[in-house]
Amino acid sequence: MYDGIVQELIDELGRLPGVGPKSAQRIAFHILQTPTFDVSRLAGLLSEVRERVKFCERCGNVSENEVCAICRDPRRDQSVICVVEDAKDVSAIERTREFRGLYHVLGGAINPMGGVGPDDLRIRELMVRVGDTAVEELILATNPNLEGEATAAYLSRMMKDMAISVTRLASGLPVGGDLEYADEVTLGRAFAGRRSA
Amino acid sequence: MYDGIVQELIDELGRLPGVGPKSAQRIAFHILQTPTFDVSRLAGLLSEVRERVKFCERCGNVSENEVCAICRDPRRDQSVICVVEDAKDVSAIERTREFRGLYHVLGGAINPMGGVGPDDLRIRELMVRVGDTAVEELILATNPNLEGEATAAYLSRMMKDMAISVTRLASGLPVGGDLEYADEVTLGRAFAGRRSA
Repeated sequence: MYDGIVQELIDELGRLPGVGPKSAQRIAFHILQTPTFDVSRLAGLLSEVRERVKFCERCGNVSENEVCAICRDPRRDQSVICVVEDAKDVSAIERTREFRGLYHVLGGAINPMGGVGPDDLRIRELMVRVGDTAVEELILATNPNLEGEATAAYLSRMMKDMAISVTRLASGLPVGGDLEYADEVTLGRAFAGRRSA
Repeated sequence: MYDGIVQELIDELGRLPGVGPKSAQRIAFHILQTPTFDVSRLAGLLSEVRERVKFCERCGNVSENEVCAICRDPRRDQSVICVVEDAKDVSAIERTREFRGLYHVLGGAINPMGGVGPDDLRIRELMVRVGDTAVEELILATNPNLEGEATAAYLSRMMKDMAISVTRLASGLPVGGDLEYADEVTLGRAFAGRRSA
């Protein structure tokens, strides 16, 4: 559709998640037509990021060092580990400022249909951490969907004989949500988990 | 939220049009976590595209040469020029395969509120082209909105004394659309422009 390199850039941008052909075209033209847009900076960051960014050897979070900033921080509560599916979840939980313990990133969830079994996740590493350190509580913060629940159930079974408490994040109505629009599963969970007011 | 460079990449991606903070994060992690994604290729294309891509000195379309592929093509009908706001419009019209003439990209539309006047668009260049060459018809294909209509009206006035026919793209119901959901302006245009069946 376009002369060589412009079409190549559009195709390449279209491979990014959530970027369709129309958005890819819009982004490419923005880059072409906006003199203030610092192309070399974006290009440089892209090349650098994969070289410089590693995954924390303890928790599996993204990090520019062998061990990430959270695992290195002595002020974090070393007795609680929050288990999440993805590094993006760490950032979501950090934004709440509710949690001051450590994390463990599994790298996904158990999904037999998608060919992801327990051995494909960082579960062995979690067992070693739990066995080696003074962990008292494991918070299972996998997603509240089929795969996340299966993963939490699996981990909960694995930890049964260990002297630690294993908890799961509460399910219920989203804050600011409308009861009328809640799906029945969420509403059912909200009833089952009701607390004294 | 993230260690240095990951957050820098997220911020930089978030400056692209149509990419919010969530999408930027998703794209950054995709780049980090997908070994098959060719980062150096995207980085290379980004750096190259601004250096190599110019704008055609005749029509203003994007081009890797001084004169674009369409203007250079002797099989295109040299007697018709289709005037569009943006280079993206050229590609949209080319996809229809309905038009075999030449283009003229204005680089926007007259928009007094946004501070865009006739002198900010490639209108002078259009007048020169029309005066110099054997153009017989000018098709005004600016957008069917306030700014596009104003621009078309302005150009139509400018061309009044020249011996060429000036036409405007038809307005009406979109093909495959539902009459019930058409807005009243579109529906009004469809009535005004009705043809014998």
